[in-house]
Amino acid sequence: MNLDTNQSDQNLPSSTDTYALDKKIVTAVLYAVDLNDQARLNDLLESLHPADIADLLEQINTFDRRRLIRLYGHEFDGDILSELNESLRDEVISILNPVVLADAVRDLESDDVVDLLEDVDKVHQEVILDALEDVDRAAVELALTYPEYSAARLMQREVVMAPQHWTVGQAIDHLRSGADLPERFYHVILVDLHIHPVGTVSLGKLMRSPRHAPLAELTEDAFQVIPAVQPEAEVAYAFNQYHLISAPVVDIEGRLVGVVTIDDAMAVLDEEHAQDILRLAGVGEESLSDRVLDTTKRRLPWLFINLLTALIASLVIVQFEDEIAQIVALAVLMPIVASMGGNAGTQSLTIAVRALATKDLTGSNVWRIICREVFSGFLNGIFFAVLMGLIGWLWFGWLMLGIVIAIAMVVNLVFAGLAGTVIPVTLERLGVDPALASGTFVTTVTDVVGFFAFLGLASIVLL
Amino acid sequence: MNLDTNQSDQNLPSSTDTYALDKKIVTAVLYAVDLNDQARLNDLLESLHPADIADLLEQINTFDRRRLIRLYGHEFDGDILSELNESLRDEVISILNPVVLADAVRDLESDDVVDLLEDVDKVHQEVILDALEDVDRAAVELALTYPEYSAARLMQREVVMAPQHWTVGQAIDHLRSGADLPERFYHVILVDLHIHPVGTVSLGKLMRSPRHAPLAELTEDAFQVIPAVQPEAEVAYAFNQYHLISAPVVDIEGRLVGVVTIDDAMAVLDEEHAQDILRLAGVGEESLSDRVLDTTKRRLPWLFINLLTALIASLVIVQFEDEIAQIVALAVLMPIVASMGGNAGTQSLTIAVRALATKDLTGSNVWRIICREVFSGFLNGIFFAVLMGLIGWLWFGWLMLGIVIAIAMVVNLVFAGLAGTVIPVTLERLGVDPALASGTFVTTVTDVVGFFAFLGLASIVLL
Repeated sequence: MNLDTNQSDQNLPSSTDTYALDKKIVTAVLYAVDLNDQARLNDLLESLHPADIADLLEQINTFDRRRLIRLYGHEFDGDILSELNESLRDEVISILNPVVLADAVRDLESDDVVDLLEDVDKVHQEVILDALEDVDRAAVELALTYPEYSAARLMQREVVMAPQHWTVGQAIDHLRSGADLPERFYHVILVDLHIHPVGTVSLGKLMRSPRHAPLAELTEDAFQVIPAVQPEAEVAYAFNQYHLISAPVVDIEGRLVGVVTIDDAMAVLDEEHAQDILRLAGVGEESLSDRVLDTTKRRLPWLFINLLTALIASLVIVQFEDEIAQIVALAVLMPIVASMGGNAGTQSLTIAVRALATKDLTGSNVWRIICREVFSGFLNGIFFAVLMGLIGWLWFGWLMLGIVIAIAMVVNLVFAGLAGTVIPVTLERLGVDPALASGTFVTTVTDVVGFFAFLGLASIVLL
Repeated sequence: MNLDTNQSDQNLPSSTDTYALDKKIVTAVLYAVDLNDQARLNDLLESLHPADIADLLEQINTFDRRRLIRLYGHEFDGDILSELNESLRDEVISILNPVVLADAVRDLESDDVVDLLEDVDKVHQEVILDALEDVDRAAVELALTYPEYSAARLMQREVVMAPQHWTVGQAIDHLRSGADLPERFYHVILVDLHIHPVGTVSLGKLMRSPRHAPLAELTEDAFQVIPAVQPEAEVAYAFNQYHLISAPVVDIEGRLVGVVTIDDAMAVLDEEHAQDILRLAGVGEESLSDRVLDTTKRRLPWLFINLLTALIASLVIVQFEDEIAQIVALAVLMPIVASMGGNAGTQSLTIAVRALATKDLTGSNVWRIICREVFSGFLNGIFFAVLMGLIGWLWFGWLMLGIVIAIAMVVNLVFAGLAGTVIPVTLERLGVDPALASGTFVTTVTDVVGFFAFLGLASIVLL
């Protein structure tokens, strides 16, 4: 961008809360619940989108949530369940009256039911499956035979297809003939004799074209066939990369079995990003509506790993006890070297993790990027070496101490660039999510290298 | 989710590279460039989507990029420019033959041209504007009068609208009459006499409905009107929250001026996420194709801020020089307290930044979340206090030292939870991007509190 990140939003009105739930509405809803005023509650919630009602349920506490859902009763819509945070679904389902639950579930499309089933207890799964009609139940159970987080779990089974030799007129007449069409569709999928998808024609293009035009001549340039077992993260990537609106899903024999639409792909993209950002920070799958104990338990393993890392760093420091006892300035300055390395390493790491996720970091450029990061670490190392060398010298009035910290700084920032790139790339090749584990490894390297370089050099040069 | 994060991908085929550029293709392309074999190059690139060609250009080095673009010549497509990373656009445009550039730009839709113009030099802006036909140029220049990163910059001006009193038959006849329809559209927007949008009817619904049905009865439930000046991040949020496929954009008088489609909203969502993740790590707007010097310069300010933070921490340590000189174990153990606090703070911070971005953290639940984070910090603090207290005691054979580090651990983890939530929330209220600045503040707090609590307590208890 031409503009600085700080300036970039300045011209825009400060309307960042356009879509945030108004605190007044939340207060009004809770007041209606307090008064046990069902009519008023229904009035208030009627104006809200199911996604906003789900947000509201997430933002209030357990006690209010229970009272609200009971009072809301039969108005409870299936879409609210779909929109609800995964960690709250079980809680809400157990509050719902079984009749309300059955009604709510029957209104959902099969891909939403599948999504719901993935995140609830076995007992609730049975209740939900029993509520479905036989046809829907069969469709849902079929989807569940595919692996979790696969395209098949994401797709709708209802597709609109046409033989590839049809004309626009034939397709329009077929659509207008009252055929059983899905609720939402944007393309007609052209198939060959074996029901293999060969192209898609958008409804817009169909509308604009003369009746005699062959469908095969109107297909979209961007055409991607999605295997049913493809991981949903890949599906989201394909939609974003190729600007797809919907894409046919095929089974192992290449036969059309469903269609994924961009709104579902966008939701997956959003989830994937959330996962990356949370994993980089050492937070597992966590949500804002988790209670204290869940939150504590989920963060503990990551903090435990960090403790091990910190202990390794301490084992390095303890080797230099005598030096520190003689020159306490070493203890004062050593965290600076480690901290700068940790930060530089995290910078390189984040760039690498992001580039791996967007498939911009590949076998073709990995060496160039490693060299760039190392060299960039070296250059920033020189800058901060001079700066910190001067500070160290002037602060403690000892030139050699300044020189020692300067050299340690360069060494650690070079290692930071190296570790920040090599570690995530290696983890990715080993099939481990680089966002999940890289941070710990990188800071271990920069702590150990930082303390060792600084204290080791000091022990040689200063004593 | 029911499954652990580690297990969740196990059933899926390891096809994470489905859409990554094949190294063999990159090698073959570069070989064709080496041989100066234009026919072969065109052959190879013809099978690639413009987005993949853009990726390829990003992955090869500057020298190869120049040769490839020159050899590719007139085949160079405008979409490649649109798909190209912003930091490379100027470079590629200056390599392109002006005639090729003009051709390439004329093929683009007006919103893509606007996007392109935002990221190139003044000189290149003129060249591109001059290449456009008068009508397109006027449309582009009008869009440029709206603020950067606003809905107006994102929208297409070509819309398909119908008076709200029309029937399905009238709409279909109008569409079929050869009206000047946009390349891609998914909805008919219903407008009143003042051209204010009042609803949307999907083409699918139009197809399924009888000719006599009034359009007004077929409108979609999810209907959001986007103000032209709305920030694009809000637009992306609305699409994701309400599952929109396209949404009408209105000017300040509420008149329809354009339409935003979900593919553009998805691209914005992706960019916003990238910004959040990079800013949290202290990396500005950076890309993998930046050269060493750019990379170095962009990271330097953040490392500089970190240096100041680290120096503040050192100023705390230096107050306790005497204590450290007497008990070197303090120097060995103190980084552990700071490191645990920094990690716990980053965990809370990341949860808060993400929740602010998804509008899940609002005035209604902010106090509850702060309490949760503090209490969770306290509980994890107790756990690690016991563990680290034992380690400290056994390692140095000094019970009181273990007790000191235990208490410091609890104090620092409580402050970590507090700072990790309060700081981003406060920055957000002040209109500062919490992802941008929170990290530094939080680690400053945890470093200072960690060193001060541990060394301060030690000076009271141990000496």
